[in-house]
Amino acid sequence: MNYSIIRYMLGLVCFLTGICMLLPLLIAIIYREPEGMAYLMCAMFCILLGLLMSLKKPRNTSFYAREGFLVVSLSWVMLSLVGATPFVVSGEFNSYTDALFEIISGFTTTGASVANNIEGLSHSTLIWRAFSHWIGGMGVLVFLIALLPMTGGQTLYFMKAEAPGPSVGKQLPKMQNTAKLLYIIFAGLTFTEFLFLALGEMNVFDALCTSFATAGTGGFGNYNDSIGGFSSYTQIVVTVFMMLFGINFNFYFLLIFRRSREAFKIEEVKWYIAIYLAVVGLITANIAPLGGDLLTNIRDAAFQSASVMTTTGFSTVNFDLWPAFSKSLLILLMIIGACAGSTGGGIKVSRIMIYLKSVKKELQHLVHPQHIKVLSFEHKPLPHDVLRSANIFLIAYCSIFICSFIIVSLDGFDGTTTFTAVLATLNNIGPGLSQVGPAENFDKFSDLSKYVFMFDMLAGRLEIFPMLVLFSPAAWARKK
Amino acid sequence: MNYSIIRYMLGLVCFLTGICMLLPLLIAIIYREPEGMAYLMCAMFCILLGLLMSLKKPRNTSFYAREGFLVVSLSWVMLSLVGATPFVVSGEFNSYTDALFEIISGFTTTGASVANNIEGLSHSTLIWRAFSHWIGGMGVLVFLIALLPMTGGQTLYFMKAEAPGPSVGKQLPKMQNTAKLLYIIFAGLTFTEFLFLALGEMNVFDALCTSFATAGTGGFGNYNDSIGGFSSYTQIVVTVFMMLFGINFNFYFLLIFRRSREAFKIEEVKWYIAIYLAVVGLITANIAPLGGDLLTNIRDAAFQSASVMTTTGFSTVNFDLWPAFSKSLLILLMIIGACAGSTGGGIKVSRIMIYLKSVKKELQHLVHPQHIKVLSFEHKPLPHDVLRSANIFLIAYCSIFICSFIIVSLDGFDGTTTFTAVLATLNNIGPGLSQVGPAENFDKFSDLSKYVFMFDMLAGRLEIFPMLVLFSPAAWARKK
Repeated sequence: MNYSIIRYMLGLVCFLTGICMLLPLLIAIIYREPEGMAYLMCAMFCILLGLLMSLKKPRNTSFYAREGFLVVSLSWVMLSLVGATPFVVSGEFNSYTDALFEIISGFTTTGASVANNIEGLSHSTLIWRAFSHWIGGMGVLVFLIALLPMTGGQTLYFMKAEAPGPSVGKQLPKMQNTAKLLYIIFAGLTFTEFLFLALGEMNVFDALCTSFATAGTGGFGNYNDSIGGFSSYTQIVVTVFMMLFGINFNFYFLLIFRRSREAFKIEEVKWYIAIYLAVVGLITANIAPLGGDLLTNIRDAAFQSASVMTTTGFSTVNFDLWPAFSKSLLILLMIIGACAGSTGGGIKVSRIMIYLKSVKKELQHLVHPQHIKVLSFEHKPLPHDVLRSANIFLIAYCSIFICSFIIVSLDGFDGTTTFTAVLATLNNIGPGLSQVGPAENFDKFSDLSKYVFMFDMLAGRLEIFPMLVLFSPAAWARKK
Repeated sequence: MNYSIIRYMLGLVCFLTGICMLLPLLIAIIYREPEGMAYLMCAMFCILLGLLMSLKKPRNTSFYAREGFLVVSLSWVMLSLVGATPFVVSGEFNSYTDALFEIISGFTTTGASVANNIEGLSHSTLIWRAFSHWIGGMGVLVFLIALLPMTGGQTLYFMKAEAPGPSVGKQLPKMQNTAKLLYIIFAGLTFTEFLFLALGEMNVFDALCTSFATAGTGGFGNYNDSIGGFSSYTQIVVTVFMMLFGINFNFYFLLIFRRSREAFKIEEVKWYIAIYLAVVGLITANIAPLGGDLLTNIRDAAFQSASVMTTTGFSTVNFDLWPAFSKSLLILLMIIGACAGSTGGGIKVSRIMIYLKSVKKELQHLVHPQHIKVLSFEHKPLPHDVLRSANIFLIAYCSIFICSFIIVSLDGFDGTTTFTAVLATLNNIGPGLSQVGPAENFDKFSDLSKYVFMFDMLAGRLEIFPMLVLFSPAAWARKK
């Protein structure tokens, strides 16, 4: 194993985390907050440690799949370990466990919080929470690829392991250019949302935080009632941008290269919109008997469905009070999640489509064994290894889900709480139902459960395999 | 499509159902119950209808996969439709929907009941409920195969579609002999349990019903508190036999043919025992703080774990009152289920093993892409189509689960009730938790939900595909 390249990459990640902490530091200076000292100290620490680790360039740059996966999973662990430090140094979180939970929830764009009173947090901490969504949304290694000129093969491993979805297409011949363009689209969309929000009643700070949190489909808000206190205009802007950030970024690639006909042919995007609209319609009808005028109900249904499907996790109403049928539909959206190649989490619309298509094909095969049909996806035959990987993803997903559920049930909460808490963390959503509903938080769980949730959040963000590789004996075996 | 052979087979099934009703008729005569008239009428009706349908033998006996699946699924629908009639004619169930639910629950060896007062039912109805488990446990078409000399190819379709588990081995060169031997083992074990129970304090009638219900891993009891009112001796006998009926019947095949070394090498059986013992240990430790002496706790944990893992569904205590951790472990056992090739339901231990092995193999493949390893199962390489079918099974299982959950949630019960009600029916267990716990029943659901449960029970018993084929346009298309 090439340990030195792993050390070198982790050093770069650490350095980058330190640089990112300059933003909350700046905010602390603007608002003259004492918490700024914490961010200054932690930024210096990260930058120094990062420099120290990456000072000596590795002599041997050969790089295999094993190192690729380990770099990805260890980078995210590194990012979390150092990213959590300001929360503890500033004294705003009770323990390092809580700080770690909060920052992992941030970087993995989950948005589940252990903070009991969000409105009591400093501006610098609020922006660090929101900014962590933005950093984690597109991926920290993708960012490194965009910045650093690296030799071909290895970067594809990172993209494959860090980018969400069953397969990564090489949009441009050079990986570095793909990564750069991804970040340009990402930043452009974020800035557009910021402008729209600032045009409304939101102040600049809230608009910035909300844009970061929407872009990463994270969901940390600055207020105890999330987006509930803002106007219809703001709620609609956030709804639209949540949906935009949940779309497969290939869509924007194709639009930029003026191939809009192809863009609108992407099957996954069509299904994403269709499922969303169907659920909004059903929920609107289901919550009608609760009262409220039709437009408000549509707006609420549209907001919550978008929030949950894109795994953002903002809320405008306490949907835990909705009827059981609506809650079940929201659970369905939580499981499905957003498009592959977006910043959203969940199983991903494209995997669901692959699953349903393979069942349909199997039924045809059972009835007419002599007919041989090929599974097609996005107007092309589906490669066998993508299908295999999607199948194993489902198995690993269900296994982690069940193990987490059993361990967390040691805390003795009701079934719905435990179930949706695991779902909300593994799918990077944020709020669940019952005692982890939109009006609640995750502080009530034991430390053991919190560590399980942290693992689930990382596993969900990295699409399970890198985290499993980290704990797999094969990855650490001496013999190659 | 060869409609005449489908008609012929359904006629035989109907005839056989009529013959089976002679047992409750006999019991009615012994106990001088007026309900006997209902069983007499219905038996006559079934026998006549069956004769009418099967009188004209089909000229064309050619038979393809399509007809095979349709015969299996339609046979089970036929069996249920006519099997439910005595419950309505005797006036012991309020509606045909309830009667249908009860008998499907019986034939599919689920054991979920809509009867509010079991102790108020007649002896003839009690034995018909228990006997339905026995008929459905091994399969009605397997029984027909054992009785009728049929030409080779077609019978394999039935065995494949009706026998539980990822793949059916041909134990003997002639399918008819395999089927016969299966029924001999099945009857022999049932009779042994009957003797053991009759030696205890149970009367002959209760011992007979309990043996039928254990053999089919069904779980209909004759008392409102299931097995709770019986002695430790009886509870231990039932525990042991539940576990015996949950073992892969290949085990008994091998024992009979004096290949006991191979029998004890079956990986699935080892895992089945290992998982069971681990859960019994954990539950015993978890319920210790509730009080009760150690031996009673072990007995209760062993009984409930066996009941739930083999998907029988008997109960001796109300495990809905156990701590959340124990309940989660029971849910885990509910999902895993019994061995393939047994009368138990669930996903099956062997599928779970295939799933976990394929995840392990994928991780090794990710870390060392150049190494190619073959997935082995039961000391042999696993055929690719068995793996594919197991993967698609999981997808179809999850899809049906989620759809059922959403529809049933229209009834507005709490999440745990809805979740475990779907799990209990789809995995043919019987009781769930909360409002479908061991002390509750399924009468509270709407008719819509009851029909969803009926579909789930049939889908669970037939391992999903035959029921999906029934609703697949490809199966009914004119063009072949």
